[in-house]
Amino acid sequence: MTARNSFHTQVEIAWDQTRSLLCVGLDPRLDLLPAPFEKDRDSVLEFCKTIVDATSGSACAYKPNHAFYAALGLEDELADLVEYIHNRYQDIPVILDAKRGDIDSTAEHYAIEAFDRYDVDAVTVNPFLGWDTVEPFLAWEDRGIFVLCRTSNKGSAWLQTQPDIDPIYEQIAERVDALNNPNVGLVVGATNLEELREIRDYAPDTLLLIPGVGIQGAKAEDVLETGCADDGREVLINVSRGIIHQDESAEYLDSVTAKAQEYASQMMIDAE
Amino acid sequence: MTARNSFHTQVEIAWDQTRSLLCVGLDPRLDLLPAPFEKDRDSVLEFCKTIVDATSGSACAYKPNHAFYAALGLEDELADLVEYIHNRYQDIPVILDAKRGDIDSTAEHYAIEAFDRYDVDAVTVNPFLGWDTVEPFLAWEDRGIFVLCRTSNKGSAWLQTQPDIDPIYEQIAERVDALNNPNVGLVVGATNLEELREIRDYAPDTLLLIPGVGIQGAKAEDVLETGCADDGREVLINVSRGIIHQDESAEYLDSVTAKAQEYASQMMIDAE
Repeated sequence: MTARNSFHTQVEIAWDQTRSLLCVGLDPRLDLLPAPFEKDRDSVLEFCKTIVDATSGSACAYKPNHAFYAALGLEDELADLVEYIHNRYQDIPVILDAKRGDIDSTAEHYAIEAFDRYDVDAVTVNPFLGWDTVEPFLAWEDRGIFVLCRTSNKGSAWLQTQPDIDPIYEQIAERVDALNNPNVGLVVGATNLEELREIRDYAPDTLLLIPGVGIQGAKAEDVLETGCADDGREVLINVSRGIIHQDESAEYLDSVTAKAQEYASQMMIDAE
Repeated sequence: MTARNSFHTQVEIAWDQTRSLLCVGLDPRLDLLPAPFEKDRDSVLEFCKTIVDATSGSACAYKPNHAFYAALGLEDELADLVEYIHNRYQDIPVILDAKRGDIDSTAEHYAIEAFDRYDVDAVTVNPFLGWDTVEPFLAWEDRGIFVLCRTSNKGSAWLQTQPDIDPIYEQIAERVDALNNPNVGLVVGATNLEELREIRDYAPDTLLLIPGVGIQGAKAEDVLETGCADDGREVLINVSRGIIHQDESAEYLDSVTAKAQEYASQMMIDAE
């Protein structure tokens, strides 16, 4: 087994290869599995593998969301999928979107889940319980974490912004920025560009994982202009449903490949 | 299959039977598995079953924490454990401590994970992403949820309290109280009694799941006095490590039973 690059180094290599900032979300839904796949749990792993093969030329990262596998009892298949990506596309890092958060002694076990059981390169974590609940993930020095900062859903303002105080997302961004650790990033939704700009100001060099483009409504060009660091990078723009679930047709996988290329072309890294 | 009681009704039945407010946390750690169990993953399910058998006379609920099973890839065994409890101790509800939180379309899948894949009676959820991310769990009307409100770990104040505004835990407590749904409770750590008292004031009738007694340092009598509703109930006091991990000895399970009885006796429901 060769030594593993640090997460941020992996991302840099992937950026150099694809010249794109596209992260492909692997969130399979049975009701949307296309023919010839049966719409049952036995089809999910194979479906995901074909999606990976169809998008590997465009993706600088993959992001399976744990919920979609856990709902179906497909945790072993999720581990198999990660192994498949590592073996076949070793320069494309895998981010487990799990949004874990628990007290420190328990968080250690969630870190083991992400980095040992699933062997992913990075994981998303929820900071609501406090910074001491994030730290156990940092003990895995070469792996990455993305701390939830400002999410893209409609109700997110309830706790993430509060009147009359500095926004909580600002406090999170500043804390992550102060670590000065390239393997630690932030999750920032693309649906509020003004806040994305503020967060970039608070954390000028931090890697941002940005959902919200595609089905959720944000535009890639706006995110690029607002979210990138000064070097024109340091963002991973995630698209899930907009790529992996196309209208059913005989050319389903061609549509997936074309859609991934289309998104990737909207998220190109400028030549230096 | 008989119709399922609502979660709160299940808890009431368990209270009536045990006269105790003790919830036993099932958080197995390989390094602490006692002889004759081998300290390996194949032993975990059997260990947990024996703990359940040894404590069933004292527990009004069981609470397995997902992290301890997920770290070992024992999700199927966790499902088996829940089924074991349902079959053998049908009046003791099972709460999955998973602290899930994700945007609504994903949260639906986490609700399926908890209520279908694991078939638990209630699950803990993290409200950081917003109330819209809690609602998919409420669609399972007879099941219970516990919304994280104020956690017991040292660093929890960072985001859960903020200077110069109403505490965030207050906002969460008021929102849950306003639902007036007995199946929706709050997780409130026992380590700060003043805040526990405030939260009980904001949510006078709400069921509270209270960790922090035992290893984490809080005393059962203080929690009872501070946390109970006017009827002397509406709390579940969780003890995990303080019960299930004893010094190794030939009488290990006797020690577990005795410890559970000791805690239960400190958490008795007054005769009416």
